[in-house]
Amino acid sequence: MYHHVKQMMYTVKIGEPDPKFGQMLLEQFGGANGELAAAMQYTIQGWNCEDAARKDLLMDIGTEELSHLEIIGALTRMHLKPMKMNREAAEADPLMVIAGGGGVGLYDSMGNAWTADYLKVTGDLAVDLRSNIAAEGRAKIVYERLIGFTQDQGSKEALQFLMTREITHMRAFTAALESMEKPQFAVGIIEPTPGLVDQFFNASTGESQYGETDFKGPWNSGNGLHTVQFERNGGENLDVKPYMPQPGTEVTSPVDSTPVGQWTNGAGEKQKAMHEKVAAQQKKEPVGV
Amino acid sequence: MYHHVKQMMYTVKIGEPDPKFGQMLLEQFGGANGELAAAMQYTIQGWNCEDAARKDLLMDIGTEELSHLEIIGALTRMHLKPMKMNREAAEADPLMVIAGGGGVGLYDSMGNAWTADYLKVTGDLAVDLRSNIAAEGRAKIVYERLIGFTQDQGSKEALQFLMTREITHMRAFTAALESMEKPQFAVGIIEPTPGLVDQFFNASTGESQYGETDFKGPWNSGNGLHTVQFERNGGENLDVKPYMPQPGTEVTSPVDSTPVGQWTNGAGEKQKAMHEKVAAQQKKEPVGV
Amino acid sequence: MYHHVKQMMYTVKIGEPDPKFGQMLLEQFGGANGELAAAMQYTIQGWNCEDAARKDLLMDIGTEELSHLEIIGALTRMHLKPMKMNREAAEADPLMVIAGGGGVGLYDSMGNAWTADYLKVTGDLAVDLRSNIAAEGRAKIVYERLIGFTQDQGSKEALQFLMTREITHMRAFTAALESMEKPQFAVGIIEPTPGLVDQFFNASTGESQYGETDFKGPWNSGNGLHTVQFERNGGENLDVKPYMPQPGTEVTSPVDSTPVGQWTNGAGEKQKAMHEKVAAQQKKEPVGV
Amino acid sequence: MYHHVKQMMYTVKIGEPDPKFGQMLLEQFGGANGELAAAMQYTIQGWNCEDAARKDLLMDIGTEELSHLEIIGALTRMHLKPMKMNREAAEADPLMVIAGGGGVGLYDSMGNAWTADYLKVTGDLAVDLRSNIAAEGRAKIVYERLIGFTQDQGSKEALQFLMTREITHMRAFTAALESMEKPQFAVGIIEPTPGLVDQFFNASTGESQYGETDFKGPWNSGNGLHTVQFERNGGENLDVKPYMPQPGTEVTSPVDSTPVGQWTNGAGEKQKAMHEKVAAQQKKEPVGV
Amino acid sequence: MYHHVKQMMYTVKIGEPDPKFGQMLLEQFGGANGELAAAMQYTIQGWNCEDAARKDLLMDIGTEELSHLEIIGALTRMHLKPMKMNREAAEADPLMVIAGGGGVGLYDSMGNAWTADYLKVTGDLAVDLRSNIAAEGRAKIVYERLIGFTQDQGSKEALQFLMTREITHMRAFTAALESMEKPQFAVGIIEPTPGLVDQFFNASTGESQYGETDFKGPWNSGNGLHTVQFERNGGENLDVKPYMPQPGTEVTSPVDSTPVGQWTNGAGEKQKAMHEKVAAQQKKEPVGV
Amino acid sequence: MYHHVKQMMYTVKIGEPDPKFGQMLLEQFGGANGELAAAMQYTIQGWNCEDAARKDLLMDIGTEELSHLEIIGALTRMHLKPMKMNREAAEADPLMVIAGGGGVGLYDSMGNAWTADYLKVTGDLAVDLRSNIAAEGRAKIVYERLIGFTQDQGSKEALQFLMTREITHMRAFTAALESMEKPQFAVGIIEPTPGLVDQFFNASTGESQYGETDFKGPWNSGNGLHTVQFERNGGENLDVKPYMPQPGTEVTSPVDSTPVGQWTNGAGEKQKAMHEKVAAQQKKEPVGV
Repeated sequence: MYHHVKQMMYTVKIGEPDPKFGQMLLEQFGGANGELAAAMQYTIQGWNCEDAARKDLLMDIGTEELSHLEIIGALTRMHLKPMKMNREAAEADPLMVIAGGGGVGLYDSMGNAWTADYLKVTGDLAVDLRSNIAAEGRAKIVYERLIGFTQDQGSKEALQFLMTREITHMRAFTAALESMEKPQFAVGIIEPTPGLVDQFFNASTGESQYGETDFKGPWNSGNGLHTVQFERNGGENLDVKPYMPQPGTEVTSPVDSTPVGQWTNGAGEKQKAMHEKVAAQQKKEPVGV
Repeated sequence: MYHHVKQMMYTVKIGEPDPKFGQMLLEQFGGANGELAAAMQYTIQGWNCEDAARKDLLMDIGTEELSHLEIIGALTRMHLKPMKMNREAAEADPLMVIAGGGGVGLYDSMGNAWTADYLKVTGDLAVDLRSNIAAEGRAKIVYERLIGFTQDQGSKEALQFLMTREITHMRAFTAALESMEKPQFAVGIIEPTPGLVDQFFNASTGESQYGETDFKGPWNSGNGLHTVQFERNGGENLDVKPYMPQPGTEVTSPVDSTPVGQWTNGAGEKQKAMHEKVAAQQKKEPVGV
Repeated sequence: MYHHVKQMMYTVKIGEPDPKFGQMLLEQFGGANGELAAAMQYTIQGWNCEDAARKDLLMDIGTEELSHLEIIGALTRMHLKPMKMNREAAEADPLMVIAGGGGVGLYDSMGNAWTADYLKVTGDLAVDLRSNIAAEGRAKIVYERLIGFTQDQGSKEALQFLMTREITHMRAFTAALESMEKPQFAVGIIEPTPGLVDQFFNASTGESQYGETDFKGPWNSGNGLHTVQFERNGGENLDVKPYMPQPGTEVTSPVDSTPVGQWTNGAGEKQKAMHEKVAAQQKKEPVGV
Repeated sequence: MYHHVKQMMYTVKIGEPDPKFGQMLLEQFGGANGELAAAMQYTIQGWNCEDAARKDLLMDIGTEELSHLEIIGALTRMHLKPMKMNREAAEADPLMVIAGGGGVGLYDSMGNAWTADYLKVTGDLAVDLRSNIAAEGRAKIVYERLIGFTQDQGSKEALQFLMTREITHMRAFTAALESMEKPQFAVGIIEPTPGLVDQFFNASTGESQYGETDFKGPWNSGNGLHTVQFERNGGENLDVKPYMPQPGTEVTSPVDSTPVGQWTNGAGEKQKAMHEKVAAQQKKEPVGV
Repeated sequence: MYHHVKQMMYTVKIGEPDPKFGQMLLEQFGGANGELAAAMQYTIQGWNCEDAARKDLLMDIGTEELSHLEIIGALTRMHLKPMKMNREAAEADPLMVIAGGGGVGLYDSMGNAWTADYLKVTGDLAVDLRSNIAAEGRAKIVYERLIGFTQDQGSKEALQFLMTREITHMRAFTAALESMEKPQFAVGIIEPTPGLVDQFFNASTGESQYGETDFKGPWNSGNGLHTVQFERNGGENLDVKPYMPQPGTEVTSPVDSTPVGQWTNGAGEKQKAMHEKVAAQQKKEPVGV
Repeated sequence: MYHHVKQMMYTVKIGEPDPKFGQMLLEQFGGANGELAAAMQYTIQGWNCEDAARKDLLMDIGTEELSHLEIIGALTRMHLKPMKMNREAAEADPLMVIAGGGGVGLYDSMGNAWTADYLKVTGDLAVDLRSNIAAEGRAKIVYERLIGFTQDQGSKEALQFLMTREITHMRAFTAALESMEKPQFAVGIIEPTPGLVDQFFNASTGESQYGETDFKGPWNSGNGLHTVQFERNGGENLDVKPYMPQPGTEVTSPVDSTPVGQWTNGAGEKQKAMHEKVAAQQKKEPVGV
């Protein structure tokens, strides 16, 4: 259940309203990496999460993002306000003023309506945590860029507050992923094909007019990877022998999500037992209210 | 420039076509985590990348994903084929057969047209690499689920091939990120607010009807984080003192993307010089064609 | 600021899961008239509202709808669960199970991603309240239809709870609109053209193959309206004489939203003064916490 | 069947073309509350309507809105025209000029393609009429705002014509709803849970930094409603006892739409008989052509 | 101005309703190649058309397509009707019955909301006519496929009527294009680069696992075209010498659309004069009403 | 399988970057008629094509369009670059700089995300070729307009290169369609209703305020067509007698796509035999690599 406390989490103050900057701020209100996207991604992952401890984490952060949506909404609204009275200001984003009356709306800085297509929710906890770590990185860089386009102190400070919280969340999601104790590249329950998984395919070759060329780096030579060349008549050095999936071979974590499909019950049940045991242990030290 | 080699990277063979499984496979042809999304995300990141070495990586994998799109397209088409002749099969996905003639199209398993809203492209290399690591994790789990819903050996093997490559790419993107030598939680050039960044906000509290409660874990207590309680009249334990952004304080990497906004030239120029020096060194060992 | 209380507002219990009914329920989770649409429509109207008293109303109901989203999400998830384990169940909505792992997502019953295009937010309070009354009517009828397609007692009861709240909200929004004391057909500050506004244009005429014909009713003859016939060479009986807009002639309410455009300051300032006076009066009897 | 008469319903004349105002006008051509949205909403409701008399109303107004689409299209096109010849004008909306050749298109003022997601069509006549009343209110306020952003007399007059018609339609839809003689808050055929329906839930509490606080008003205290407080550990004063839906208890109108689901035939048949009887009576006085 | 005549253009009759066939029919009601798409594409092209004679053609056909939308809507609604009463039928398209009450809506056969992204409107008359010829071909084939999936005689006949009209329109658009007397490959006013325009680039080479290989055909060798081979290190046989655009060199027609951009006035004025002369001549033989 | 050659097909050079022109150029990068749309439309048609010879054509051009996407991307990126450093430039397209870091993205000139709704893929070869001819015409005119809005020589030349290729492709698609030897208006396998197909319906009549009137032209009188008048009480002169579809009566080509639906096997098998025979003949002269 949700409760709204009228006091905002952060007190927004601005100097001179700047409608075109307000339009830029919409990116974090109704944009692809904005606060509603964050709130919905984590909350829905939370509602689907079978691990009660990490579900708590997802709900904590998902709820905080709703409070951030309120903050960025207030900041944006203050900057958009002159659109209401001023034809030239209104030209910056006619959708907000003609249709929306000069307030905020769930649109990005170019007027695209918010869509759930922005969200990354797979129902696999470790995968979702990786998506969240990436999402926090994107939100951080967007806030940083917004800070770089305003000279207004109050706006800068409000954005700094919101930006900081993204790093807090990135750290929390990373700790949660690490606490699952899965090997770094283990996803799900089927191991990738041995041999083939070590081959880096050099699919872009030659030298460009701008001096770009083929590079060696730890991403194609080293870290267990080696490069396979592209041959004109096919990628013949790539190992394309058929190999049957081997479910259950991948190293999983006791708190992994239940698999999906034909082996749900097999691997699933075993995980569930371990999962409940761990959840029980974690529950011993609940954080009180 | 692109070249298409008629030989497919993997030879797809199936037993009995299964149109409803074909519909599921569309998820990886025209869906949110599918092969076109991967191809476009990495390729466009590559075209925007100012670090020629890691641009090469992005183009290698972006191009390989186009070859994967061809493979999953062939597999899907084989399974959808009976839709053409059979009313009952056609009912599974009328859009594909009535409008599309029974072939594949850029739609997901519920008929949603592919949209660039699926992509995560920020133009900040370290952020983009994190988005790619997460994207590969999502694609892996989706392939695994598809394998779990078919009994056809040829289909399972083709999906295993594609699934394996996602892990290869995940390893390559991780190596590229690590090679940038940035601290784990450093994003961009502005440091988060000290103190505030360590506070985990307990925004979801109490106990649910289903036995869920507040948990302690490394994500809210430890790893430098500590929990701040929610108070009814506001998040008053949270540190909300104004703090001005301090650009240039964050530890960056020589191959970081040029910042955006008012400090572009300052920090940007310095990075560019280092960047070119590193690029020159890397170029000494080009991978020949 | 938002707070999440782990206890759900209503305790959801179901008998036998019914995945195809789960798919239908998605309509109220991520559909056009669903709970997220309601929560966002009222909350964003609230954040834009300059009348503090009715803003409180919008925030009360907007927040309650978030709690409803959690309830319908839990109910839907229980019904979708078999999709995870069962190929036939999975065929009902492959997007939810292949991409989403068998949990809920912000999609409607046909897999369309939720979009802010569903929302109606104009920033004019009286107009927004009318949109909300209509929205509650739509949500009520959708819940009623869902009840009609299940035999599961627990599901019926949960839907009855949610359905009832829509009528509560419809009554509250109606009371708020009436309390603004605007004439029934007064919108904004410009009066419609006298004469022309009373003419009902009979643009669909004749008799169909199915026995439909032209009807007289209180909507075209009576209530101050009279019918104007369509003539083949144009709507010549319709009064199309040019008439200049007369801002300020429409009867407004002390709590009307500030107008937009060239007369913002004129009419706006006067309204603001009255508005503040009324707000102050209303504040004398605050509802304590 | 439709017929197009070349004579426009209103003769559009403008002074100086104003491309940025033209962009604003697109809001009513291809925007969410624009003329195509109105035409399609009423027409499709009409095609689905089983009450021949009110279907006639829906077709009359739906058809008139098509004529309005032509008017706003002509006005918009006149203002956009300089985009064709002038680089600076073209910058206001490159999509219209580069892709569209400088004419009008089904896009809103920020270039979003028109989508049927804008429409509200439920197939329940009383609910649809409420949606239409709200839609006319929104269209009225949008026209008023457009008038406020131009000084061109011809444009103002054309917009005044279109704006006036929205009020005419609002009156007609209201008369049609009232003529159905349903109680104000009766929707469908299931009564809301007694008791619970009278409880207004105070989900937003406290006092904000901007002086906002909890308010009492007729929307939460009076009109049969009373306020229920939010308690930290749940909405415990809210009546959440299970209650089974009681179809058939709600007061319906002889012209209500047929219900959907398990009780379709029962209540439906009886309504249909009454419905036909009333329709027959109304038909006695057809409006001739 | 539009007028709706209650008599439908074609009297739709069906035998046994078939809800899953109804779902397929939605493809032509609210789908990408359906009747609304046709009506809107031609009508908006018409409103933008500066050639009054061919504008008349566009309005004739655009208006007829609205009448077709009514026919396909009636046919679809008859087939969807059982959804209202029957849970199993409702599962075929829950969106139409839960949200839409069992009537038709502007969605395609997989529930995608109609979008103006389906339309092809460029404002260049000859280009638009080619888009229309292609659109009629697509609509024809979709109707043919629908006919192939039903055994109901009334449905087949109604679809045959609609299908036939697409061919009539295809012939009319083709005649209009030919009457413009432009060379077959002349588009706009700038000639393509001589030499380069004759080179067919062989970008897909080799032989596939399925026996596909490189083919010669009139499309790459003959008709003035000759094949240029792809070389591994670039398309070096392709003529990529810089060449400046030469506006005014392309053979245009007296009824061509006014060009856009810097040469608007030059070429444009001359065309306009010729255009008016031709329009005047054509007007001598107006088709009376 | 795809291979990326680092050398671009055309060497892009610009003078002074022009961010607002860069925004216009996005139309051909991520817009409705842009290079990704072309690449995807032809490639997916190719993957679905059962005629190996014309599949080769579709793959050749589909692949070339990917190389064009790279060229227009490079040109656009050069023009957008100042957005990164300059607040005023950034205002032109905040989405590209705030969210995208100042690089290119799959958006059109008004920030709409690319969608597969832009594509026209029916799986009927002759229909698809017509769609492609039209698509090339649209792309040509868009390039021409872009040329008209810049004075930069390097940009003009690059656009001239891309524009020229569209005409090459238009010629190739036309040659392929003609080589199928189908009558001009034959689509699929069912003949349109005789008689009815020759009637042009005059659905738009009268004279407008702007002097437009009913015109005679080869599109409604001649070419086998004759005009049928609209009568107020219905289109009664139009031949609306029921007529059963007659599959197999239309003149098809040996390389036609297999039909869809109930007669797939009948007509289909015969076509397939002829198709293979022709394909074998064409294969005798393969174009080597």
